[in-house]
Amino acid sequence: MPLTDRVLMGPGPCNPYPEAVQALARPMLGHLDPEFVALLDETCERLRTVLRTDNPMTLPISGTGSAGMEAAFVNLVGPGDPVVIGVNGVFGARMCDVAARCGAEVVAVEAPWGQPIDPQRLLDAHPAPRVIAVVHAETSTGVRSDIAPLGAGKGDALLLVDCVTSVGGIEVDVDGWGVDIAYAGTQKCLGVAPGLAPLTVSERARERLVERSPSWYLDLRMIGRYTGPATGARTYHHTAPVSMVMSLHAGLGALLDEGLDAAVARHADCGRRLQQGLVDLGFELFAAEGHRLPQLTTVWVPGGVDDGATRAALLDRYGIEVGGGLGEFAGRVWRVGCMGHTARHRNVTLLLGALAELMDRR
Amino acid sequence: MPLTDRVLMGPGPCNPYPEAVQALARPMLGHLDPEFVALLDETCERLRTVLRTDNPMTLPISGTGSAGMEAAFVNLVGPGDPVVIGVNGVFGARMCDVAARCGAEVVAVEAPWGQPIDPQRLLDAHPAPRVIAVVHAETSTGVRSDIAPLGAGKGDALLLVDCVTSVGGIEVDVDGWGVDIAYAGTQKCLGVAPGLAPLTVSERARERLVERSPSWYLDLRMIGRYTGPATGARTYHHTAPVSMVMSLHAGLGALLDEGLDAAVARHADCGRRLQQGLVDLGFELFAAEGHRLPQLTTVWVPGGVDDGATRAALLDRYGIEVGGGLGEFAGRVWRVGCMGHTARHRNVTLLLGALAELMDRR
Repeated sequence: MPLTDRVLMGPGPCNPYPEAVQALARPMLGHLDPEFVALLDETCERLRTVLRTDNPMTLPISGTGSAGMEAAFVNLVGPGDPVVIGVNGVFGARMCDVAARCGAEVVAVEAPWGQPIDPQRLLDAHPAPRVIAVVHAETSTGVRSDIAPLGAGKGDALLLVDCVTSVGGIEVDVDGWGVDIAYAGTQKCLGVAPGLAPLTVSERARERLVERSPSWYLDLRMIGRYTGPATGARTYHHTAPVSMVMSLHAGLGALLDEGLDAAVARHADCGRRLQQGLVDLGFELFAAEGHRLPQLTTVWVPGGVDDGATRAALLDRYGIEVGGGLGEFAGRVWRVGCMGHTARHRNVTLLLGALAELMDRR
Repeated sequence: MPLTDRVLMGPGPCNPYPEAVQALARPMLGHLDPEFVALLDETCERLRTVLRTDNPMTLPISGTGSAGMEAAFVNLVGPGDPVVIGVNGVFGARMCDVAARCGAEVVAVEAPWGQPIDPQRLLDAHPAPRVIAVVHAETSTGVRSDIAPLGAGKGDALLLVDCVTSVGGIEVDVDGWGVDIAYAGTQKCLGVAPGLAPLTVSERARERLVERSPSWYLDLRMIGRYTGPATGARTYHHTAPVSMVMSLHAGLGALLDEGLDAAVARHADCGRRLQQGLVDLGFELFAAEGHRLPQLTTVWVPGGVDDGATRAALLDRYGIEVGGGLGEFAGRVWRVGCMGHTARHRNVTLLLGALAELMDRR
């Protein structure tokens, strides 16, 4: 059976960098092999560069981005802890669910879908929160919320940021912004297959980890004895997903060879072209102006364009995947990703051309 | 830099099947792409065959084998629930830790390392346990514990079995033995890279899942709405690790093309040759006779053989990885795996030849 080859312009996964694909098929190494341990250390160092942090505890969690979210909460939040969470889409709402399962007293600060979270409202929501949590780039709406004012005003609180869709696509500055714990996913602007969640923890947060996480698998005290900061012998925790780590190592290598600033500029340029092109075709942009992500564009589907049929035609006739809306916006909004290796002019040109052909037929 | 190519004869990962390696590098698909969903369904069906079960809820958890263990406990065990756990090695002890974090009343039934767990002792340990849990094949000691008597005598309890190192290497019969929840890892006798945890849940256990798992990421009620049993529309939970699922699909395909019985016979044959060969070289077998795993052989390192230096020489001069002992057996015991694609006569011959060369030099 022939293998299907897609142009992945949904909310993720993107098309991975060729280097990341090749590395998946590298010969297997044991998870305690000196060569693998060196590769893992270098991967963590590359993650520090991409996240702009010196945090010793910076490592890939052995699960997808949502495992990163869970790792952040289960290691910082215990029963009764007040946690302020910004909710302007699916992933902020998911944070509330995860925090509640830790027994947190959740204080949700809501904003309409498509709007950013006002940082001052988060800072004013509780007099002494243990954690203030927010999604940097909402994958459900294509909106960026600003992080720097939260770091400046957080006081004694720990600042937890979801960078799943942001890192590699727009500026992320963990240390500069005063972020205490951040996690990402590999399959968005890092240009690697889904399966790992890069995570970084400030020294300030590391001193305040819960005594015993309710999760064994995501217990950062235990994971930290295997994956950086490397001090002496490694202690086995669980078998690292070796091939995925090799692929992340290679994908980050490709990204850093290009240069982080150049990659961010490429995402910005593709987003600008894509958004202008979609407007020219009669789509209306969904996300608030000034807070639109270049790497994930949300648009109202124009009247007369059938959501399901058009996306199916894109997939079947052109091999292009575009994402549908979530929640109440299902059927009415599209989410068009231009992330990682997908963020190339040619893919923007292709999608706009395909849409023009399909829409002329109606 | 040249890529290092190992013969992986430790406790895992093994060398993956070539088909599984190739599939890692397949073109990426979206996690809701109809082609991927069909491939995922077929993967779940193949897992049913390999685990010998008709359980509709049979799926790969998006983490390593230890995530499978955690998924089993957090979905079945709540605060105060009595849980009987067999402990004759690292992984039984890990179960106690995971169960305790769920708030369980843990009743540990211990046996010396190297010995199996007596099923009757597990059945007699508590008058009304919610769960009886045991490791089928202890990766830390190379010992098999018998499961069928537990299923026959479990009464109202749920039977939870760790099949990480057993499935594909020795007989596993989930339905025939009355197992209620079992999990595995991909990197042992299934011959795939580490990163996924196949898991199956009996209908009886599915009716008794906890109301709300403390883990969002491993919540089987939510995961079940995306991954089998397929009924109507899929609900997004988290982004599936697409490449790893493609690889598991291909690895299981290779295994089932060979035939499950043939693969089990191949592991048995390799284990027999390996164990005989090691005894001939002066090693003493560690695991109790009659309960030795063919796929993971444990041996006492003979006097005069330096543990670290010899394993380093195997790795550096021959590219062969062999595992060291854990806990109090570190430095005194080796764990020699012959699993998945590694379980070939030629690898046994190679290791025995390399050891003969190295030991003659001393």
